[in-house]
Amino acid sequence: MSDADPASYRALARPAGARHIDVIDQRALPHALAHAKIADAEGAALAIRDMWIRGAPLIGAVGAYGLALALDRDASDAALVRAHAMLDATRPTAVNLRWALDRVRAKVLPHAPSARADAAWAEADAIAAEDVAINHAIGEHGIALLRAVAQRRPGPVRVMTHCNAGALATCGWGTATAPLFMAHAQGLPLAVWVSETRPRLQGSNLTAWELAQRGIPHTLIADGAAGLLMQRGDVDLVIVGADRVARNGDVCNKIGTYEKALAARDNDVPFYAAVPSPTIDWSLPAGDAIPIEARDEGEVLRVAGRDDHGQTVQVAIAPPATKALNYAFDVTPARLVTGIVTERGVTRASKERLAAMFPEK
Amino acid sequence: MSDADPASYRALARPAGARHIDVIDQRALPHALAHAKIADAEGAALAIRDMWIRGAPLIGAVGAYGLALALDRDASDAALVRAHAMLDATRPTAVNLRWALDRVRAKVLPHAPSARADAAWAEADAIAAEDVAINHAIGEHGIALLRAVAQRRPGPVRVMTHCNAGALATCGWGTATAPLFMAHAQGLPLAVWVSETRPRLQGSNLTAWELAQRGIPHTLIADGAAGLLMQRGDVDLVIVGADRVARNGDVCNKIGTYEKALAARDNDVPFYAAVPSPTIDWSLPAGDAIPIEARDEGEVLRVAGRDDHGQTVQVAIAPPATKALNYAFDVTPARLVTGIVTERGVTRASKERLAAMFPEK
Repeated sequence: MSDADPASYRALARPAGARHIDVIDQRALPHALAHAKIADAEGAALAIRDMWIRGAPLIGAVGAYGLALALDRDASDAALVRAHAMLDATRPTAVNLRWALDRVRAKVLPHAPSARADAAWAEADAIAAEDVAINHAIGEHGIALLRAVAQRRPGPVRVMTHCNAGALATCGWGTATAPLFMAHAQGLPLAVWVSETRPRLQGSNLTAWELAQRGIPHTLIADGAAGLLMQRGDVDLVIVGADRVARNGDVCNKIGTYEKALAARDNDVPFYAAVPSPTIDWSLPAGDAIPIEARDEGEVLRVAGRDDHGQTVQVAIAPPATKALNYAFDVTPARLVTGIVTERGVTRASKERLAAMFPEK
Repeated sequence: MSDADPASYRALARPAGARHIDVIDQRALPHALAHAKIADAEGAALAIRDMWIRGAPLIGAVGAYGLALALDRDASDAALVRAHAMLDATRPTAVNLRWALDRVRAKVLPHAPSARADAAWAEADAIAAEDVAINHAIGEHGIALLRAVAQRRPGPVRVMTHCNAGALATCGWGTATAPLFMAHAQGLPLAVWVSETRPRLQGSNLTAWELAQRGIPHTLIADGAAGLLMQRGDVDLVIVGADRVARNGDVCNKIGTYEKALAARDNDVPFYAAVPSPTIDWSLPAGDAIPIEARDEGEVLRVAGRDDHGQTVQVAIAPPATKALNYAFDVTPARLVTGIVTERGVTRASKERLAAMFPEK
């Protein structure tokens, strides 16, 4: 495919004709590039729930393959319902998961059970391929935003991102990173601010790794440093991904995104969300109804990293009896979002403009 | 002294009549309570620069004792100038350091060299004692803010703080924590949100430890979670310390403070800074002139914590070649500050109101 991501790594791959998928076990990054084979629906659910893979588009694709794997074993109506429910329960916030599961289910239901598994595998393949194409289109639209900055001032375009909305969060290119990866390939100088993204450090573990793999200059910062850098005039624009977007343009994304959007607004820095259309939840009028996943407090109380002996270990950073609260996402109100970049272009974050861009919804 | 902090730990102590000081080596907290003896000016400088001790008021007091230690060895004018410069160069942002060094120098200069060291020790003692009294007064003024919340709604008063402006940052009580510690002792129910404060984790390492020592309910959060908690209505007020405050009320404090102030404003949550008057830099018209210390990138690239064997180790969280930028402070504009709590009361953060509170400046 002409819009294939040329990177040497793939978050998700289905070997030709195989009845399993291979994923990067992202828990080992950036210290090791480990792959895991997922050969049943339970394995897919585990990989999503325990975040071997993460990122809304990738969760959707792995969920779709998980349903195909379930149907390989038992393609009855009852088994389909069970597998759909099991996979859907793994992560509550990313809407792509439900969207992909519903799409595969709708595709296979009209078939006789004997034909369902093949139909599910084909539909999962289609979801994965469409994700790559969508992200490529997001990249093309997003490049224009970067080029506009480059025309206004000399030097590299200084982009800030948060968490990982990269190729590791998708089937290729990433969402927020697609414009960066493609602009860099076209020779546009970039300097990327990578917010480390506590508690799980997707910025330092994943986004820094991806940028290094692709040779794109970048600098890691603590999450709290974003505001100061914007105050100093060191950020040209912010671009993040999304886990779910409401009809009105409210953007649910990794915890800490809202604070970046506030800092961007306070310093007149444009703030964009890169949003494949399956991430838009047309059933939700506004972001305050999005369920916010609270994950294990251990993610806040401990940090995983590589020690001096090259071992990846977890270290405790708080007193033993400390309690933590670990909401994984927040909601950035549409009023703070300069624009939403979809596969169809860049639009204002409003109910009217989103509806105009997707009139079929 | 009647306003002495009853806590069992002291960040700084001078044993009666001793010509040295004892400090808690805060790098070992919360995993171990280690003490260090500082017996010369070079030791004081090292303890400040390498953050065995930190916190603007404590840095000031240790700096003052450092000058006394220098004068014990050589009380000539030249030695005084050298020691003042060496200590002053250890941390650029906290104004209390320069203030305390200048105060000791001014006190001892009129004396003959033979009398200077004793005068310096006495002045350092006075600075430390005044710090305790100032923080106690801040606590009394701050309690009124907490009680006002308690009168409006049932349940514990939910206070968010950032970094450590506790007894470990001062000679007793802390600044932002003085109202909390004193209100808790008076039986006012509290629930404190502790922002972990990357990169050095003063929230999880120090503030959580202090609150646990004093039996005050608290919950640790990632820095990026503050905005969501305010959106949810789970925060009654924010109170932080300061490293330097400009004449106009701009507050320089630990990196990440500005983002919390933005979130507070966006959600109508009152945002207070607890500021002993020596932290106000009357020579600075506004915060944008405050020098922002950039510390070693290793603080962002690595995290220190306790491993499963009970050893405190550093772990790398980013790919090996990653670069980081590590500004230690940011500036919260006065317009985002609901009030400044000083030893004289609570005032709006403005040039006029601060000047009215301290007419002698």
